[in-house]
Amino acid sequence: MNVRPPLGLKSPLRIPHKLLMGPGPSNSSPRILNALSQPILGHMHSELFDKLHFFQIMDEIKKGIQYVFQTNNQLTLAISASGHAGMEAVLCNLLEPHDVVLILINGIWGERAANLAERYGAIVRKLVKTALGSNFSIIEIENAVKIHQPKLLFVVQGESSTGIYQPIIGIGEITRRYNCLLVVDTVASLGAVPFLMDKWKVDAAYSGSQKIIGAPPGLAPISFNERALKTIANRKTPIPVYFWDITLLGQQWNCFERSAPRLYHHTTSATLLYGLREGLAVIADEGLEQVIKRHQHCAAQLYEGIEALGMQLYVDEEHKRLPSVTTIKVPDGVDWRKVTEYAMKRYKLEISGGLGPTAGKVFRVGIMGYNATQENIVFVLDVLKEALKHSVTSSKL
Amino acid sequence: MNVRPPLGLKSPLRIPHKLLMGPGPSNSSPRILNALSQPILGHMHSELFDKLHFFQIMDEIKKGIQYVFQTNNQLTLAISASGHAGMEAVLCNLLEPHDVVLILINGIWGERAANLAERYGAIVRKLVKTALGSNFSIIEIENAVKIHQPKLLFVVQGESSTGIYQPIIGIGEITRRYNCLLVVDTVASLGAVPFLMDKWKVDAAYSGSQKIIGAPPGLAPISFNERALKTIANRKTPIPVYFWDITLLGQQWNCFERSAPRLYHHTTSATLLYGLREGLAVIADEGLEQVIKRHQHCAAQLYEGIEALGMQLYVDEEHKRLPSVTTIKVPDGVDWRKVTEYAMKRYKLEISGGLGPTAGKVFRVGIMGYNATQENIVFVLDVLKEALKHSVTSSKL
Repeated sequence: MNVRPPLGLKSPLRIPHKLLMGPGPSNSSPRILNALSQPILGHMHSELFDKLHFFQIMDEIKKGIQYVFQTNNQLTLAISASGHAGMEAVLCNLLEPHDVVLILINGIWGERAANLAERYGAIVRKLVKTALGSNFSIIEIENAVKIHQPKLLFVVQGESSTGIYQPIIGIGEITRRYNCLLVVDTVASLGAVPFLMDKWKVDAAYSGSQKIIGAPPGLAPISFNERALKTIANRKTPIPVYFWDITLLGQQWNCFERSAPRLYHHTTSATLLYGLREGLAVIADEGLEQVIKRHQHCAAQLYEGIEALGMQLYVDEEHKRLPSVTTIKVPDGVDWRKVTEYAMKRYKLEISGGLGPTAGKVFRVGIMGYNATQENIVFVLDVLKEALKHSVTSSKL
Repeated sequence: MNVRPPLGLKSPLRIPHKLLMGPGPSNSSPRILNALSQPILGHMHSELFDKLHFFQIMDEIKKGIQYVFQTNNQLTLAISASGHAGMEAVLCNLLEPHDVVLILINGIWGERAANLAERYGAIVRKLVKTALGSNFSIIEIENAVKIHQPKLLFVVQGESSTGIYQPIIGIGEITRRYNCLLVVDTVASLGAVPFLMDKWKVDAAYSGSQKIIGAPPGLAPISFNERALKTIANRKTPIPVYFWDITLLGQQWNCFERSAPRLYHHTTSATLLYGLREGLAVIADEGLEQVIKRHQHCAAQLYEGIEALGMQLYVDEEHKRLPSVTTIKVPDGVDWRKVTEYAMKRYKLEISGGLGPTAGKVFRVGIMGYNATQENIVFVLDVLKEALKHSVTSSKL
């Protein structure tokens, strides 16, 4: 054999503890980390074999996702891929070539959805928020739906790139009226703001495991209602991607109440399911309302502290701010890279820079899950204050 | 909120230890399980911040995959999805609508590849082994390539559904001669038999993390050579799936030796990368040749023991057997379900039934990674002997 064992693999892995106060992933709690090192189980271990079987864990996760999405949708499960894949899975199941899709864009995730929809042959219409730092009004949305008559409207509830919160309430009534599907991205928002999937008439939604749920990245909670399922059943072309094929995944997750045995679709990751199961259990324990309140209190505390430091928030109006990702304007004369570097080097604290439209313009502070505590907010503010002093590049500050 | 917290999530997760001697996943070693509970890191933590940074772990994994694939291919990385996704990723990057693909089928995985290739619009030609329990000869393969003139030849090195080993040596010379790409599935075989990607002129290959490597499921090692990369560069249509887009993934994994910063493509799973890194490190420590020998010794020990029990192996000729998955004919008068159930209930030992063409006809015993020890083989044989006695349904035995 010609390729020798790499030297880098000689020493065992050692991971330092960092406090992740960026836009995700967040730190998993000790309970979740502990669950990750539990023994691997086979992905098809059924109740035939054991009381504590794999399918039971999958069922518990399904119910946990129904809870955090506030839905009774049977077709609710976790996709075995990063949160991002949830976006692709939803679009590729619901869209066919030449379908018109309308995408609300107020940051990078709307742009990404447009890219994906184009790959699947859809005709993409965009409603772009040119005045960044604001969200879309119901009237703007209704007008756009009226003009474009899309098959599907795509909305990001929490834009982690800009820190903008887009209310969903009221949109479902519009999409029903215009015979359009409503798809909502809740990757960065779920658990930090209410998301009432059924009540708000959302037809499909997805999230990520590594944000407020606090599990490792690698799974995407996802849910489709009957209306979405009907659209899929009426497809004229096959679902293009096997791995995202929700009709098969739904059989693996026992979502169709058939008496047939579960389908083996792919090997789900025991480890990641353990983490997600515990992440959902922790939310169920605390109560979703309380989890949301905790995030909102921490966010309010952060806003106050930021203003006390003489810094400005990127999103002017408080009700348009996403509690889980706060965008803070980089003050004139400050090198943002130095600030984030200082925080990481000196305090092992992650604060992020901007992304997409906000790159170089803002800091992003995440408040997510286990990390959403008053103590952490005080710590972030203290470190920011100190880091700013060390990062002045000109005399403007 | 109308949807209440589910009762199933009230109690914390408790996972029993099972010995997984089925076709995978296998048990992760204590070293790997321990790595899984290390703190989460951000997926874009670079050397700017820390010596022990995330990109370093990715680089180590890349080198580890190059080692186990025996390749110097720069475009080598791990896809963030189950091993199965490796198959879809390779096919969707290399195939375009109306391309002819030739698939060697001697079990379920070839059939699956055909299904996926059809979804991507390829024209599928199949070479099917009707005499099951055997593999394809070089002459059969050359004839088929000559007749069908495919753009891509798809071969499974180790068919976990039938326990058949397909030698790869010599096929690369044929595919080069006919201007065809050679793609090899090594999910169930890598580490149990030699796989010399460069020497054998394999253009693209993938594997799974949860078999011989012994990490949790959820990542698929994958590699493309220059020839495959050229095919991708010459595509007339865009790569249809964003999540599998290897030109973007290669930028995230720094495979193109550009000075540009790494692209953020998706959030890789820190936890799964820790496990894969340690799985690869364990193989590098022991040495790939030794790992392969250990699997082959255990397999020989199993074959002998099975025959001593009066049972028959499904694959007649020893050199056609995959050491990592042994298929054993279910004796007449034995209820295979009772056998696997008995082993699990009484001994928490997983032995599997057949899959696809072998469903109901065979037992499948996996010998993979950490589980590939003489002690485990003795244990499996002892349990099988006892279980068979308890599972006779007629007087034929």
